Amino acid sequence: MVVSIIGLGLIGGSMAIDLKRRHFADTVLGVEKEAVNAAAAVKIGLVDEIVSLDEAVQRGDIIVVAVPVGSAVKLLPQILDLFSHLGTKGKIVIDTCSTKAEIVRSVHYHPMRGCYVATHPMAGTEYSGPWAAMPNLFDGRACIFANSDESDPRAVKTIERLYNVLNMRPIFMNAEQHDVHTAYVSHISHLTSFALALTVLEKEKDEKHIFDLASGGFSSTVRLAKSNADMWVPILSQNRDNILQVIDTYISKMGEFRDAIADYDEEKIRSLIEDANHIKKILA
Amino acid sequence: MVVSIIGLGLIGGSMAIDLKRRHFADTVLGVEKEAVNAAAAVKIGLVDEIVSLDEAVQRGDIIVVAVPVGSAVKLLPQILDLFSHLGTKGKIVIDTCSTKAEIVRSVHYHPMRGCYVATHPMAGTEYSGPWAAMPNLFDGRACIFANSDESDPRAVKTIERLYNVLNMRPIFMNAEQHDVHTAYVSHISHLTSFALALTVLEKEKDEKHIFDLASGGFSSTVRLAKSNADMWVPILSQNRDNILQVIDTYISKMGEFRDAIADYDEEKIRSLIEDANHIKKILA
Repeated sequence: MVVSIIGLGLIGGSMAIDLKRRHFADTVLGVEKEAVNAAAAVKIGLVDEIVSLDEAVQRGDIIVVAVPVGSAVKLLPQILDLFSHLGTKGKIVIDTCSTKAEIVRSVHYHPMRGCYVATHPMAGTEYSGPWAAMPNLFDGRACIFANSDESDPRAVKTIERLYNVLNMRPIFMNAEQHDVHTAYVSHISHLTSFALALTVLEKEKDEKHIFDLASGGFSSTVRLAKSNADMWVPILSQNRDNILQVIDTYISKMGEFRDAIADYDEEKIRSLIEDANHIKKILA
Repeated sequence: MVVSIIGLGLIGGSMAIDLKRRHFADTVLGVEKEAVNAAAAVKIGLVDEIVSLDEAVQRGDIIVVAVPVGSAVKLLPQILDLFSHLGTKGKIVIDTCSTKAEIVRSVHYHPMRGCYVATHPMAGTEYSGPWAAMPNLFDGRACIFANSDESDPRAVKTIERLYNVLNMRPIFMNAEQHDVHTAYVSHISHLTSFALALTVLEKEKDEKHIFDLASGGFSSTVRLAKSNADMWVPILSQNRDNILQVIDTYISKMGEFRDAIADYDEEKIRSLIEDANHIKKILA
């Protein structure tokens, strides 16, 4: 099996590592438009060869689109066009993007739609680039299959095998549902971290030593603020409507804290904290 | 040296462990009003004996007040009164509370003020109780000494030795400055986590499986939402004015994101994220 990976960042690179060493892929081809990243990916040994997009599609049995969702939305129809043009049967393209509604919509009427399987492996760190790639990144995490009824059942089966090799749990849902869920359990976390970083960095202008006191709790809540703009701008923009709704709920919850603190209402503060503590039931 | 620790939670309990096994304390006495916690602390072996407050003050060379700041503010003057009453020289009382201005103010005019050293060891986890106590909790972290010019220099020296044994870096500042800094690098992080937990828990009422998708990033940003109300209600309430200011900045930063997303203003979203990324310079 030849797997072609377009975009050798954290996700593409980590997939390359495990698909190769777990013998799912005999050959891994890489497509990477940033020259430095491409050279690094070869040097680190993530891929067997760096090739052009055309060659990747021509030689690959499975094409993995692991670029930011803004680029993926443009790339996916091109790849399906190449599938038509090549006339070969059995090739599959998947994407790994964090928003699903827009990308699925973009090829809904494409004659080769069946060859595309929309997935979102829910794994990552706050780092990016081929140097952030690591073995075992996906182990034990969930992988969403979105609108899989629009894909050929055989293609879905093959991709289930691929994610099984990565030790991921498949979860099937429609793309809209996916985007609502990720707005709540992933996208808003990034926004709260970004806003926290901005708040403290602004204060640091006057108080140079403020970070001397930063504790483990601060690092943990702010760590996602290191996340890459290339990845996050299109996610926040494509998932706009869901995200706006979550932000509004979030700001209103923060406002309840604000009002309770302003009013010296300790009973209310206590009840808000105790409600928030229910998160213990869910997170180990 | 006999160290008496009032409040055998995460901080008091962890101090007991390291002060004993690193031979700073020959004997550790504990005062704990919750019977279950007291029994657990003895069973775990955190302290040599559970005693009354009076006995702890009478027998202890150093008294550590490690209870939530609301109780500490009431307890500290009582302990200094007992010092006067006992007429013994050389006893020292310290507190470990996360807000400093109010507690320092509460004994500013006490005749025994010099025997009190106000400290804040900046270490912790989201867990509480004697079962959360652990060795090495304080290693490598900062410990604030607040308004130490109001304490007897000899008392300060002794307490510096104590925190040196715990491998903490001492930082000296005034209590007001401390409370501003911790509002930014600790208290707001807890509020952002509490608000995030409330936001997602509210959605969970309709979407039972929303947490199936929670990734490492979500867990990291929300973990402080497990923190205990007994500890956090008085902190948020005592540090009211600083916290309100931080919340307002924070909500306005979140509002900037909201507006940029609502306006499809990708340039602005990018610039906010890239500004937030400067946190990389500060956090490893």
